[in-house]
Amino acid sequence: MTVQASSHITGNDIESRIGELIVRHCSPMNDALSGFDCGRLYDDVVRQACVSSEGGKRLRARLLMAFYDALTGTSSDANARGRALDLACAIEVFQTAALVHDDIIDEADVRRGKPAAHKALASMTAERYDDTTVASAASFGSGLGIMLGDLLATASVDIVNAAAVELPNHEGIMSGFLTMHREVEIGQVLDLAAEHLSLDDPENLARNSLAVFRWKTASYTTIAPIRLALLAAGVDGGTASTTAESIGMPLGLAFQLADDLLDVVSDPKVTGKPVGGDIREGKRTVLLADALSGASPEQAAYLRRCFVAQERDAEVVRHVIDLFTETSAVRRSRERIASLWSQTKTAIADTGRALDLDDDALASLHVMCARFVPADIRD
Amino acid sequence: MTVQASSHITGNDIESRIGELIVRHCSPMNDALSGFDCGRLYDDVVRQACVSSEGGKRLRARLLMAFYDALTGTSSDANARGRALDLACAIEVFQTAALVHDDIIDEADVRRGKPAAHKALASMTAERYDDTTVASAASFGSGLGIMLGDLLATASVDIVNAAAVELPNHEGIMSGFLTMHREVEIGQVLDLAAEHLSLDDPENLARNSLAVFRWKTASYTTIAPIRLALLAAGVDGGTASTTAESIGMPLGLAFQLADDLLDVVSDPKVTGKPVGGDIREGKRTVLLADALSGASPEQAAYLRRCFVAQERDAEVVRHVIDLFTETSAVRRSRERIASLWSQTKTAIADTGRALDLDDDALASLHVMCARFVPADIRD
Repeated sequence: MTVQASSHITGNDIESRIGELIVRHCSPMNDALSGFDCGRLYDDVVRQACVSSEGGKRLRARLLMAFYDALTGTSSDANARGRALDLACAIEVFQTAALVHDDIIDEADVRRGKPAAHKALASMTAERYDDTTVASAASFGSGLGIMLGDLLATASVDIVNAAAVELPNHEGIMSGFLTMHREVEIGQVLDLAAEHLSLDDPENLARNSLAVFRWKTASYTTIAPIRLALLAAGVDGGTASTTAESIGMPLGLAFQLADDLLDVVSDPKVTGKPVGGDIREGKRTVLLADALSGASPEQAAYLRRCFVAQERDAEVVRHVIDLFTETSAVRRSRERIASLWSQTKTAIADTGRALDLDDDALASLHVMCARFVPADIRD
Repeated sequence: MTVQASSHITGNDIESRIGELIVRHCSPMNDALSGFDCGRLYDDVVRQACVSSEGGKRLRARLLMAFYDALTGTSSDANARGRALDLACAIEVFQTAALVHDDIIDEADVRRGKPAAHKALASMTAERYDDTTVASAASFGSGLGIMLGDLLATASVDIVNAAAVELPNHEGIMSGFLTMHREVEIGQVLDLAAEHLSLDDPENLARNSLAVFRWKTASYTTIAPIRLALLAAGVDGGTASTTAESIGMPLGLAFQLADDLLDVVSDPKVTGKPVGGDIREGKRTVLLADALSGASPEQAAYLRRCFVAQERDAEVVRHVIDLFTETSAVRRSRERIASLWSQTKTAIADTGRALDLDDDALASLHVMCARFVPADIRD
């Protein structure tokens, strides 16, 4: 097989298709709400659905398309490829749905450099209705945010259902997509549970944190895009699942570890996020587990005290960041990522042999997967 | 066609199948969470999913099965009928998902005589983690409640996807079920918008309120059960949609009007709800619109003052209830329900002719539909 020039899918193609699909799959049929006062608020919600969905890096969509192109090569017909693109967009729409709910749960104010959806909806509410107090606009905004997340989640399944009809493995694609939904939802619950993990057993903490990563991140970031790409390309369900796990699991874990690492070593000017946000929130991460493992008894006691406390101020955050380096937790995370990237490369090579991919196709997969791992670690 | 004895489906069949389906479609595959501390909280969530789903009247599931049985009669094979039952259960699972989110949005403490899901999850949290304060348990409970609603919504689609594979009209069933999801989600947004409807134009208020009823109630209470039943019985998509609208629309509106009426005329000992709850919350209802239409200028001014105020005490609630009678709003609602019931009966008769149903089948549909309308109004 030969890989199609990957320039066929641009970020703009994905972006504009996502906008189209959201409007189509969130709007009532036949303009049924026009002429009703109530309907105007729903227009606000659909507008917010589009705004909230903008600004993602579309890594997941591009991963799906890279695998689809590598598998179908020049043999892919334009219509089928368009439907595969819809699957790719559906994952992005689902991510937005999950983030909208996540920001309500975490009481986060900002997402992708803009007000979080429930915050934006609260402002809209205050503007639309003069009779609204600030407190009632906030609670109204959260209510609308819950519904916006529900609408986007429904839209994502609807997009897949419409696309899958014209693709091989219709049933497998539907149940694969719904499995992804469930896994992320389970992952969110596990992420909440992780807040209460004991700090007394660092090894158990690391093991649990990595398990949470599998559900809340790898599920929809890497495993589902690869699985759905293979199914859409006509690969049988069993092969699609094992391939997706073998590449997507290490790659997805590496991606989340790198994201957590970015929180303590990055330049806020580049990431747009303040350093140490996870520490300020007291999140249980693999970094924290590794820091506890490598800490002196005094350092460990200090870390436990900090993370059990209700709040951590800027000075504590700075000190904890220093400890993450001093205890070798940062180095350990880099080693973990490097090892997972190495597993990913092996899995890509194995897949290439199993599915009879040519060198160009393999190289394109390698380039795409590498985007999930920081350059200075993978080289 | 001949109708199958409706005793074939008992409330117990529906109840036990719902429990089975929730556990199957909410659990991670292969027991993947056992051995992880984080997984125990997820077990709590699945347990709550089952508890929250119990105690419904299952009118929607029974409506679906009544139509399915009337259509398939003795020709229905046991396996297909089992899958139709799964569709019926999926609607109930979806309802629970919607109620879980609705109770978070409305800050409701009680549902079906038990603590609302997010309240129950907050209590569980406080029990499981000694380090938790009351405030953080409450916010943790709401977060888990949002995820529980998401999980149940996903499960409901997954149940339909698994069942539809073995039924006629696979694609139509999937897209019909997803349309129902979207309509209810739109309806919830409209319901929030209705809180801000102007009280100065009663006719517009009534028209908007009835539109909200179509989306938030008729969609999944009557229209979708009938539509899915017909599709599962092999009726073509066009006929299924028009039949479901013609019977389900008036029946669903009558059901919601009757529910609102119950709020002001019922015996709290029978309904388990205090009288006047909607009035205390300041809800914009058709009853309120009709009261404003029939009120003297003084009465109308009083009603507007009451419903614009932040709160309404017990004395105000009692006075408003009296006004609903004095202004003939209660009588007007009863007339509206009677007229909608009469439309429903005509639509059932038309359907009987169009689909060639025999008298027994027609009678069974009539009996089932009548359960949605108060006996003293329909007779």
